[in-house]
Amino acid sequence: MEKVNFTDKFSKFDDLWSPKVVSELNDYQFKLVKLQGDFIWHSHADTDEAFIVIQGSMAIELRDRTVNLSEGEMFVVPMGVEHKPRAENECHVLLIEPTGVVNTGDSQSELTAENDVWI
Amino acid sequence: MEKVNFTDKFSKFDDLWSPKVVSELNDYQFKLVKLQGDFIWHSHADTDEAFIVIQGSMAIELRDRTVNLSEGEMFVVPMGVEHKPRAENECHVLLIEPTGVVNTGDSQSELTAENDVWI
Repeated sequence: MEKVNFTDKFSKFDDLWSPKVVSELNDYQFKLVKLQGDFIWHSHADTDEAFIVIQGSMAIELRDRTVNLSEGEMFVVPMGVEHKPRAENECHVLLIEPTGVVNTGDSQSELTAENDVWI
Repeated sequence: MEKVNFTDKFSKFDDLWSPKVVSELNDYQFKLVKLQGDFIWHSHADTDEAFIVIQGSMAIELRDRTVNLSEGEMFVVPMGVEHKPRAENECHVLLIEPTGVVNTGDSQSELTAENDVWI
């Protein structure tokens, strides 16, 4: 039951594509993640997933279009929709999704991060 | 399934203490609200409630302490905990909570806003 300062929390880690939990809301979690480069195509069969850009810019590729997001913008990837996040330069993002969601969804990969890591 | 730009959405309304829905995540909603002055003491019996400050600063009074929030900070008020938001100057906030939550919780008031208003 402490407030979260995003800048402070982002200063505590450097690894990419590895979401860190900073708060919970009922059975949902708020996770901070640093992105750079290309992620993999994946989807989440059971849930939507919210991306809010805190710093920098990124793209979320969908099969039929690309959503470009900059600081102060958000997008919700609907349940079951394949997506591939990417960022040319390091981008800081807040994710909101149910507790237990794995970053690579249905696509196990070397990019699959340890889940439920708090900072 | 469109992205949301917070600055653009905040430009679309001026009323205070009247949350506007901008996106949904499963059975949760993202709401933008402009705050200035003092809200009322209330609680939400069935849910936590997340506050993320997008611009400006605000305070969330709890019965035993006050949480001060500035841009880039968030706080989750736990289920059932009495709180009173206030802001000296206009503050722009993103709320995240389950669909159907009323802004004044268990405390009906002239500040009770119409629910589920999208912009």
